[in-house]
Amino acid sequence: MISPAKRDDMLVHQSEPYNAEPPRGALADDVVTPIAAFYGRNHGTFPDTDAATWRLCVGGMVDRPLELSLDDLRSRFTRHEEIATLQCAGNRRAGLMAVHDIPGQHPWGPGATSTARWAGARLADVLDAAGLDPAATDIAFDAPDVADEADPPQGFGGSIGVGKATAGEVLLAWEMNGEPLPVAHGAPVRVVVPGHIGARSVKWVETITARDRPSDNFFQATAYRLLPADTKDPGPGDGVALGAVALNSEILRPDDGDEVPAGPTAVTGYAFAGEDRTIIRVDVSADGGDTWVQADLDEQLGPWTWRLWHATVDVPAGRTTITARAWDSSAALQPEHPASVWNPKGYVNNSWPAVTVTGR
Amino acid sequence: MISPAKRDDMLVHQSEPYNAEPPRGALADDVVTPIAAFYGRNHGTFPDTDAATWRLCVGGMVDRPLELSLDDLRSRFTRHEEIATLQCAGNRRAGLMAVHDIPGQHPWGPGATSTARWAGARLADVLDAAGLDPAATDIAFDAPDVADEADPPQGFGGSIGVGKATAGEVLLAWEMNGEPLPVAHGAPVRVVVPGHIGARSVKWVETITARDRPSDNFFQATAYRLLPADTKDPGPGDGVALGAVALNSEILRPDDGDEVPAGPTAVTGYAFAGEDRTIIRVDVSADGGDTWVQADLDEQLGPWTWRLWHATVDVPAGRTTITARAWDSSAALQPEHPASVWNPKGYVNNSWPAVTVTGR
Repeated sequence: MISPAKRDDMLVHQSEPYNAEPPRGALADDVVTPIAAFYGRNHGTFPDTDAATWRLCVGGMVDRPLELSLDDLRSRFTRHEEIATLQCAGNRRAGLMAVHDIPGQHPWGPGATSTARWAGARLADVLDAAGLDPAATDIAFDAPDVADEADPPQGFGGSIGVGKATAGEVLLAWEMNGEPLPVAHGAPVRVVVPGHIGARSVKWVETITARDRPSDNFFQATAYRLLPADTKDPGPGDGVALGAVALNSEILRPDDGDEVPAGPTAVTGYAFAGEDRTIIRVDVSADGGDTWVQADLDEQLGPWTWRLWHATVDVPAGRTTITARAWDSSAALQPEHPASVWNPKGYVNNSWPAVTVTGR
Repeated sequence: MISPAKRDDMLVHQSEPYNAEPPRGALADDVVTPIAAFYGRNHGTFPDTDAATWRLCVGGMVDRPLELSLDDLRSRFTRHEEIATLQCAGNRRAGLMAVHDIPGQHPWGPGATSTARWAGARLADVLDAAGLDPAATDIAFDAPDVADEADPPQGFGGSIGVGKATAGEVLLAWEMNGEPLPVAHGAPVRVVVPGHIGARSVKWVETITARDRPSDNFFQATAYRLLPADTKDPGPGDGVALGAVALNSEILRPDDGDEVPAGPTAVTGYAFAGEDRTIIRVDVSADGGDTWVQADLDEQLGPWTWRLWHATVDVPAGRTTITARAWDSSAALQPEHPASVWNPKGYVNNSWPAVTVTGR
């Protein structure tokens, strides 16, 4: 078993397969998250892949199927960098579980979201080299990390639309924050799909298949789908497959339950919206929403990154709930209540975040 | 004064300049709205333009400034069709005014949204013919319909980003629903910017200017901006310019205040999201949100159109409020309450729609 090199204070939901998130404050200081704090979300054991013998097979609806070594990938294609935030679809699930239980799922807090500087080859360039059939509509990824929770057990996989796959920002990455990609994050090579839920950024990718329909993999066809609240026994194709990341935000500091000196209190958090959306405004309230202050937004490092934000609110003595809310570049606001977005698998909790603190 | 050819039952907020919307039910039967029902939103008097002498001037940061007649536009550029929904940023403002008054603004209901089949030249092709400077970042439109409300009084105008302007879907349209574009909708030629607020689809356009910053026109720099609720005296550049249309929905039938037979009741509405978002789900509740039924979604005619939807809910005897809520393709949900989105100019009310009916 390979141990991920992580902070000692990671909140470990499961050690095998490894599922862990950093404490809120660990995300507050850096737009680019240190690898040691970057969340880990896995459905299977890390595969023990030998980079020297690893091969990437590109096939399906292509003119020239490819089999590429890591050296081939590095030497035949231009290296490209992208700073991208990944967000697990289950991020903030704990807020939904507080409304109504979600058995069999990890109670992720706000830390299943992190940002890294990725480098690798553009998927678009690799597909171009393979001669993509114009009739292909979906590009599927498959990896060897077998997940027992899948029905039947199978390696993790998923797919994205061909438009996204050829748009240029999707990488086959072998570097993370300037270092060789760690095994815990998909070495030797992982997919990075900026703007989409983390599940589409398949780690340890071995097979890329051009298709005329979405992947049949369990994690595309059955899991990672938005189901109506009253769904009883979901099967393949029920609900809607998740793709682009919904507008979301969280408070990172102070932490929920903190004691703070009464008076002006600095609040820091993140806000993120997938695909063509950016964050244009974040409001913070310490009086239950009667009054709001606008947060200062840090620079957005690129089109695929979150924005960290900062505000100062007045915390009185006693217990106070601090709430935040974000708007995206279409002037759409997050929904207020977790009960409104509750769903049976506990995905996409993008309701207004809140932490309760005690002023002393 | 030119009279628009509209239904007799239009809800006329102002006759001069002409501002009117159809009753809810008039939008419920057709994905493509009849011209007679299509809303009219104007800041000035319809200009009395002679199509024979009209010229479109394309200039600013271009290599070859153009002066095009209507014949030039028709003969030099390929005719292109696009079905696109236009939505006024003030659509559903009445719901915000019920929370807190918004002086000096029309109380638009849900009818400031309509869909037409537009045809004309692609703006991208015209900009290509003019030789767009790669340093240009914004494309500005100006028209001769002088608005006294502007400070100082000026013709209506606005701008869009160069990426949107060259993406192919933006038209310089001379046809609407297969007929010559009516004067009330911008004849001889108007801009149609699918996915953006209606204000960017400048009618009676005469000047297109490539720039390195957004338009200085009053309706870009000062109006049509999202301001924080506590803004006192907004000036140019305050708040955030509106562009892409936020996720929104409305109930079209039954109408608010209708009497209906108690029992199963058919509900019809629209849902719409701008730019790269589509509608994936609409829920309807007749019990205050305790239970929801999923609406059937009509086919989406194209990437730039609303979806009409249909559901059947059980209406008991007495007064009942029917509520709806829509999700976009990022699995983002509309915010619940109009108070959450209230803003001083009354734009982008995308809170959950509701109508109250009486079961008999």
